Amino acid sequence: MALIVQKYGGTSVGDIARIRNVAQKVAAARARGDQVVVVVSAMSGETNRLIGLAQEISDQPDPREYDQIVATGEQVTIGLLALALQAIGVPARSFLGHQVPIRTDSAHSKARIAGIDGDAIRAGLDRGEVAVVAGFQGVDPRGDITTLGRGGSDTTGVALAAALGADECQIYTDVDGVYTTDPRVEPRARRLEQITFEEMLELASLGSKVLQIRAVEFAGKYRVPLRVLSTFDEGPGTLITLDQEAEGVESPLISGIAFNRDEAQVTLLGVPDRPGIAARVLGPVGAANIEVDMIVQNVGADATTDFTFTVHKNDYARALEIVGQICRDLGARDVKGDDNIAKVSIVGVGMRSHAGIASQTFEALAAENINIRMISTSEIKISVVIEEKYVELAVRSLHRAFKLDEQPPAG
Amino acid sequence: MALIVQKYGGTSVGDIARIRNVAQKVAAARARGDQVVVVVSAMSGETNRLIGLAQEISDQPDPREYDQIVATGEQVTIGLLALALQAIGVPARSFLGHQVPIRTDSAHSKARIAGIDGDAIRAGLDRGEVAVVAGFQGVDPRGDITTLGRGGSDTTGVALAAALGADECQIYTDVDGVYTTDPRVEPRARRLEQITFEEMLELASLGSKVLQIRAVEFAGKYRVPLRVLSTFDEGPGTLITLDQEAEGVESPLISGIAFNRDEAQVTLLGVPDRPGIAARVLGPVGAANIEVDMIVQNVGADATTDFTFTVHKNDYARALEIVGQICRDLGARDVKGDDNIAKVSIVGVGMRSHAGIASQTFEALAAENINIRMISTSEIKISVVIEEKYVELAVRSLHRAFKLDEQPPAG
Repeated sequence: MALIVQKYGGTSVGDIARIRNVAQKVAAARARGDQVVVVVSAMSGETNRLIGLAQEISDQPDPREYDQIVATGEQVTIGLLALALQAIGVPARSFLGHQVPIRTDSAHSKARIAGIDGDAIRAGLDRGEVAVVAGFQGVDPRGDITTLGRGGSDTTGVALAAALGADECQIYTDVDGVYTTDPRVEPRARRLEQITFEEMLELASLGSKVLQIRAVEFAGKYRVPLRVLSTFDEGPGTLITLDQEAEGVESPLISGIAFNRDEAQVTLLGVPDRPGIAARVLGPVGAANIEVDMIVQNVGADATTDFTFTVHKNDYARALEIVGQICRDLGARDVKGDDNIAKVSIVGVGMRSHAGIASQTFEALAAENINIRMISTSEIKISVVIEEKYVELAVRSLHRAFKLDEQPPAG
Repeated sequence: MALIVQKYGGTSVGDIARIRNVAQKVAAARARGDQVVVVVSAMSGETNRLIGLAQEISDQPDPREYDQIVATGEQVTIGLLALALQAIGVPARSFLGHQVPIRTDSAHSKARIAGIDGDAIRAGLDRGEVAVVAGFQGVDPRGDITTLGRGGSDTTGVALAAALGADECQIYTDVDGVYTTDPRVEPRARRLEQITFEEMLELASLGSKVLQIRAVEFAGKYRVPLRVLSTFDEGPGTLITLDQEAEGVESPLISGIAFNRDEAQVTLLGVPDRPGIAARVLGPVGAANIEVDMIVQNVGADATTDFTFTVHKNDYARALEIVGQICRDLGARDVKGDDNIAKVSIVGVGMRSHAGIASQTFEALAAENINIRMISTSEIKISVVIEEKYVELAVRSLHRAFKLDEQPPAG
């Protein structure tokens, strides 16, 4: 008998018919002999409706009252799912954050889980009940309702799995797993059977929006096996695990290719090459609450340097303005920018032990005459910035170069 | 400095503009130097929407899960009202049932309040905050959310006023007070300045649907001064108090005239006059969950008796059927019924010390040629059953006969 935590998002519980479908999936797991804890989000659209009401009153609503309001979305869903389970003969009991309790700090609307007492849920499981837990919410030391922020239901699922020592935490979404890249760009993209937490973090932060990053971090930290699978189709999904080599599975060189069209590039040309340039440039940008992603600095021909970074397209105009001022202050030559760029990243833990991945990447792009404008590497990732119009071509040529459409040999 | 509990119903908080209006009224009370506790219902339509969701899954939803779901309506409103108060510079804090806490028994969806701990609310008031409390909900000894049943927010308001020792509990509705009768029937109907709890109970149970009966009982029991007034108009409303004579105010003979068109009459004719007839007739009717209102038994000419009672029109067909069977069992002569009847009641504590009210009533009706079919009296009420078509005429003639349109002399 395994203990499984299943998490269903807003689309999976978007109406009564879908809630009934989730009840059937839970009942099937139980029929296989497993104990099941289900975490659910608010019905799709509901959280936005509640936020809309609060913001009709105030642009900056008091965070405690905001949480009091938006936490009701999940409260409705847990009651409805418990009823749907009971209606098909499965004993079930719903739990609000404070009824578990899921204890958090008091950082309303972005609270962090401080601890979970699993006794009440365990008692229910021992009585043969399914526990239906409200995602996204907790209770602070004062007894106030807190929420974990957008996508927080994934975190609730993982944290509950960790606290209960569950055998697996299953995150049900509208995709059937993690793919080698976006199938809309490369039709030969392949679902991964397994991926490591580290790879998943790199892919998630790079735009494969399957799982909330915090939930993946949490799962990695507490070694909770995590599986992404589809609410609407049958299938094994993708299992997210610890380092596969450590578990005797040979890692593929590359697990996936992510891309991101949301960035823009700002370059400060001909800056007098003195220590502290990076801080002089990025200080005012950070002070304006603009997040910087890639940063590259090149030594120029004379005693000057070129400094380039990328920001979200939404922040592009403001970043250009700020850097224009810095250009005058520093006596630099010029400021240039481009918001027709894209970032493409290849990710794989296999990189650690294999040389030559970078040159293979650059060769594959060169063969297609794609000019690389920036490069940034980490231990398990290589990112390049290219012209936006080449993004599909780049993803497809890299997908083929690294043979991602081929099933890796069984470990 | 007075402590006031204000309760606003679903229509009063039906949209954001109305919630802002309530915030203004609360701010005005606070500006007069009062401490204010506000109890609110769910936004109008919201409770029905939630019940609809639950019933889409199950005709007989599990009461614990049902309460978990429907309690969210008030939770949203308290958050929004707290935000609206803060937006106009009034410090405010919302309280769910379990955050007060309002302790109840475990009778889900019709729970009774067992006790209220006022400390958290008092601490907030002492900090200068307005306390915004969710009506209709509480928490049982297991920590489960309970609801008090329809209209339970009135009860929450009164119970909080009692627990906090408030100076007044103000129930805001869409009418500006309690009237001598329905102004749609008698345009000369007059708002009462005061009415006693007893009179209010008789008027409420007779169809003046201003206040929930349980709330009035509660207010009477704990001697909480209760005031009914309008959310949308200024005005003093109607104060519901203990016996006015006890407070040195001379009571008017009659306070109001209620009427009810929802009843039907069933008569069993020529029953052999033996002890136990009433029980033989009403036992099976009660067993069928049919509530009986008026009961009259007359001795007939021979050794038989006629037995008449009234039920709700919805139960009329079933009651006739049951009594038909009883008629055969008892060897009675016949069963007759009529659902074109109405009940008119005059209510007033002054009746206790004044003779002749009954005969004045009968004379007024006789003067209009209205035939009385049943009579039933209590210490502060006289009810008559008449043909339904005469109900407006009867109400107007009685209203004039007892000079209810005239302001009573100041006490």
